[in-house]
Amino acid sequence: MNTLLSSIKSPNDLKGLAHKQLEQLAAEIREALCRIARTRTAHFASNLGVVELALALHTTFDFNYDRLIWDTGHQIYPHKMLTGRYPQIDTIRTRGGLMGYPNPAESPYDLLMTGHAGSSVATALGLKCGDDLFRPDEDRHAVAVIGDGAFPSGIVFEAMNHVGGLKKNITVVLNDNKMSICPRVGGLAEYLDRLRMATFYTGLKSEIQRILTHVPLLGDPVERILAQTKDAIKAGLLGGMLFEELGFHYLGPVDGHNIRQMQKYLLMARTFAGPVLLHIVTEKGHGFEPAVVDPVYFHTPSQFPDGNGSSEAGGKPSNAYTRYARDAIREQMRKNDRVAVITAAMCQGNMLEPIREEFPERFFDVGICESHAVAFAAGLAKTGGRPIVDIYSTFLQRSYDQIFQEVALQDLPVTLMLDRAGLTGPDGPTHHGVFDLTYLRPFPNMVVMAPGDAADLTAMLDFALSHHGPTAIRYPKAPAAMIDRDLMPIELGVAEVLGWGGDGTIIACGALLDNCRKAAEMLREEGMEVGVINARFVKPLDKATILRAVEESPLVVTVEEGALMGGFGSAVLEAASDAGLDTSRIHRLGIPDRFIEHGDRKSLLADLSLDAHGIAATCRRLAGKPELVESLQRRRAK
Amino acid sequence: MNTLLSSIKSPNDLKGLAHKQLEQLAAEIREALCRIARTRTAHFASNLGVVELALALHTTFDFNYDRLIWDTGHQIYPHKMLTGRYPQIDTIRTRGGLMGYPNPAESPYDLLMTGHAGSSVATALGLKCGDDLFRPDEDRHAVAVIGDGAFPSGIVFEAMNHVGGLKKNITVVLNDNKMSICPRVGGLAEYLDRLRMATFYTGLKSEIQRILTHVPLLGDPVERILAQTKDAIKAGLLGGMLFEELGFHYLGPVDGHNIRQMQKYLLMARTFAGPVLLHIVTEKGHGFEPAVVDPVYFHTPSQFPDGNGSSEAGGKPSNAYTRYARDAIREQMRKNDRVAVITAAMCQGNMLEPIREEFPERFFDVGICESHAVAFAAGLAKTGGRPIVDIYSTFLQRSYDQIFQEVALQDLPVTLMLDRAGLTGPDGPTHHGVFDLTYLRPFPNMVVMAPGDAADLTAMLDFALSHHGPTAIRYPKAPAAMIDRDLMPIELGVAEVLGWGGDGTIIACGALLDNCRKAAEMLREEGMEVGVINARFVKPLDKATILRAVEESPLVVTVEEGALMGGFGSAVLEAASDAGLDTSRIHRLGIPDRFIEHGDRKSLLADLSLDAHGIAATCRRLAGKPELVESLQRRRAK
Repeated sequence: MNTLLSSIKSPNDLKGLAHKQLEQLAAEIREALCRIARTRTAHFASNLGVVELALALHTTFDFNYDRLIWDTGHQIYPHKMLTGRYPQIDTIRTRGGLMGYPNPAESPYDLLMTGHAGSSVATALGLKCGDDLFRPDEDRHAVAVIGDGAFPSGIVFEAMNHVGGLKKNITVVLNDNKMSICPRVGGLAEYLDRLRMATFYTGLKSEIQRILTHVPLLGDPVERILAQTKDAIKAGLLGGMLFEELGFHYLGPVDGHNIRQMQKYLLMARTFAGPVLLHIVTEKGHGFEPAVVDPVYFHTPSQFPDGNGSSEAGGKPSNAYTRYARDAIREQMRKNDRVAVITAAMCQGNMLEPIREEFPERFFDVGICESHAVAFAAGLAKTGGRPIVDIYSTFLQRSYDQIFQEVALQDLPVTLMLDRAGLTGPDGPTHHGVFDLTYLRPFPNMVVMAPGDAADLTAMLDFALSHHGPTAIRYPKAPAAMIDRDLMPIELGVAEVLGWGGDGTIIACGALLDNCRKAAEMLREEGMEVGVINARFVKPLDKATILRAVEESPLVVTVEEGALMGGFGSAVLEAASDAGLDTSRIHRLGIPDRFIEHGDRKSLLADLSLDAHGIAATCRRLAGKPELVESLQRRRAK
Repeated sequence: MNTLLSSIKSPNDLKGLAHKQLEQLAAEIREALCRIARTRTAHFASNLGVVELALALHTTFDFNYDRLIWDTGHQIYPHKMLTGRYPQIDTIRTRGGLMGYPNPAESPYDLLMTGHAGSSVATALGLKCGDDLFRPDEDRHAVAVIGDGAFPSGIVFEAMNHVGGLKKNITVVLNDNKMSICPRVGGLAEYLDRLRMATFYTGLKSEIQRILTHVPLLGDPVERILAQTKDAIKAGLLGGMLFEELGFHYLGPVDGHNIRQMQKYLLMARTFAGPVLLHIVTEKGHGFEPAVVDPVYFHTPSQFPDGNGSSEAGGKPSNAYTRYARDAIREQMRKNDRVAVITAAMCQGNMLEPIREEFPERFFDVGICESHAVAFAAGLAKTGGRPIVDIYSTFLQRSYDQIFQEVALQDLPVTLMLDRAGLTGPDGPTHHGVFDLTYLRPFPNMVVMAPGDAADLTAMLDFALSHHGPTAIRYPKAPAAMIDRDLMPIELGVAEVLGWGGDGTIIACGALLDNCRKAAEMLREEGMEVGVINARFVKPLDKATILRAVEESPLVVTVEEGALMGGFGSAVLEAASDAGLDTSRIHRLGIPDRFIEHGDRKSLLADLSLDAHGIAATCRRLAGKPELVESLQRRRAK
């Protein structure tokens, strides 16, 4: 099985192959993609769409040498199979296996580890300028492959502008599959639609171009007007003006499933003096009918062992935080027509489709444009609206400056809902959302919350939408516990004490509360009484409750699914230090100062002592410290 | 003097005025602008350029009601004079006086406090959508005024794309003065140059348009091709295709110093159904000849009491950190041809002009595109280059996600030089760079430094460029001290001990070192021996030295010109807590959890106890605490 693909140890092995063999490879790559998708959740439809492109690129360029950046990077599977990693391809997205994104540690053909959209043109230009400066004799070419979904991302425009100014010989392949995970939106999308339609005129266009080439260009003003008209006709008929105006030479649209045609145009781009935008049109899910019909679902489908695409698991767990968040948002939108929701192309990931259906006017998908999303929300808030910005924690990093200037500085009531905060599992370090507490907390006016369970999340959104200023709620990509208790209402800066214990206190920040509770139960069975506090607010911190714990507990363990530097535990240290308390009995659990690899969230948490066993073990260890025991005795003796 | 302008209490007072009176007002506004510039450093040339625009806007729209956003906001002086603030205009940029940027606390005509470029289109769209949703009967219009310098900023494109998709009736006034503080760069700039040239064809254009309007649009394919040609000719001749393709109706170019013409086009834009981009051409510095001749210098000139523009002070102080940084960069570029420098339109602000002259090939001005700047640098670094990204601390916030993904995650040797870190003085809260330590520190692989004086800065850049991974150096907008000592070489994660003292230790992070030294001197004269440590590294922290201070000193004061939440002091608390040390004797001085107003840096620092007096007073106060004295005695008894 897959004999030809198995024989490809590197792109060099593609060089001698006949067109028929390349087509066979395409079929074999598709087979492998389906095999992966049958066994686990993985990026699927986008990979099916770029099989021929990957083949055309690797047979036209030599990426031992030339530079290739796959924007975002989730469509890198065919590239991985062609660059010596076919034998490991079935390990993809599993712990210790291949990453689902580019990874320089795996192969020199992967230049940068990426996962956030839109940086490809910027880094490709950097590579090109660096090669021209530092390896001037080598004439390396740089290619960025970017989907139409990522294309509206602001950094793409910034980079295109710079490319256009420098007139560097780089190729941007715009992979137009009409999707941005969700159906794409915006002026650019409509423009691409018009460009695609222009294929109809292909024959006519070349004829007109032939004639126009013969119009003489002279110095006479009248002639110049003629020449101007000629340019106008060329531009209007040949398309791509938007790119041409920025200084790119536009080629396309080209059929992205026709290897030969792409080779021809890629070669043309390579030899052209100056930047080229090659517009290829592909079908997301090409070659697997169910994915063509529903490319949104098949972006990252659940595993489908039966082979026809119907999922065994049926998508996200019914108790996912994301689902509770969506239900809470919908509830708020039903009862308050000032509430609007903004997503950055993550309509499906955030499960917002039913809201888009029910409230089309108060639902805004801005595309992969997180910076705009937050500034836009600020405008809505200024008119009296109550916007909710629903974005993955890691992608909200793109909005850092807008959260600062447009939201926090204005003290506007924008509510940020940070989905997938914490360790996101198989996507890995580009997708883990572990910095949000450290970057949101220092902004004045921000209220930062982390729900301890599903009930908290719903109540926090209700609180946030009645609060006068900016709020943030962060929760993980995980099933939400529903902790059995008399739910304390959410009050600004007030923690919820689940119980005090004479031997210590665990202060839980967010969804790890359930692990903390379980740890306390384990310890109780061993005779150690440890209290549990559900912090709820990272900012403002409930100083009364937390400082009481610091003062009275022989040991305090803070637990957070976020970076330890500057995170929740540091907030506790700051508060304790400001109050002049001894902090030596505080121990902070969280994400250490390294990038965390991909793998399932549970095992990653266990590694970091963030599961119930790890938390309990930490308490045991601290309790066993002689100086702590001594301090405990001193305290009790008083 | 200025009798007409004095009578304008609000834009309502403009309504009945004749055109001649508006021109008189324009002259009076220019007079006031010159008066301000004679007395202090202020944004000048850009304000001279928009005098007529401000008048045209306020006489065409009613911004009691319609929405107006001045992008960035440094060109808001004429608007302030026309909206009831002329009596206070001479207080601008002084402490307690008017802000040099929009400020909603001053006037309802200022909607958002801004200072970072490019958000205007996004917020204007938010305002428009909010007004349409929440005040559907009011039909408010939204106008964003944005300069060609800010225009390439990615968020503008993101917002334009969204506007084009929603087809909202908003007006974007593109104020094209051919500048981006520094002469602007990039493909878009060249495009605007071409558009401006097209004015020549104005007469011709309207004639052609008249004829084209009579070409019939029929169903026949041949006719359709004719129609297509017609569109092509229109587009090519009428210009603005880049904006038209995104879904905007393009109007212009229009003379931005002709009030009547702008009124006409603004009215057209207001009534047009759908988004309009109105391209106006202005002259930066218009009406004041020296500023027209040198608009870069006159962006924010030094005061020029003589009235002819020649400065008394002669620009930046000769010992400014910025100057040392520039000299150090140049030195490195001279000795190592792998070093390149990247600026985001701050060539002048960062004093890089001589470097641009000397090393044009290794100097990159990317325009106001900070996100791209950092990703581009990552590409350069990947090819073996040693890029230095020289950006103001507050503007580098735009690169947060690129610092994460393209730099820290890849562990690439990009050196970030954060100029204007700390309190920047008269620009105020949008420009203070107080969050950098809190946002850089949590990224794995980052090395974060803050020089204690000029010598440190030079040595740190040398260190950074030989370090294998990402580095950041932050320093303030202030004269740099040159502390007399045997300079210890920079070693990764090693602090410099200026002296130990039996009564306490001050740990200085960065340029406040000099104030700390002075404080220690004052205390010494009073008989209190306080040591001073120059931390140098915020990350990795010199745990050996700092923990020794925590263990041995009766009191420890950390001093930083940055946000206290998650900053340098917190890093010290974290280290002490991790080591199980008592942190109750540590006191952190820095920026508290509020936005700091504008005013001169010295007095702002004094307010926050960050001057020598404040630091000394803090030490005295802490030494006077009975529990500290007790702890001191206990320790000494051991």
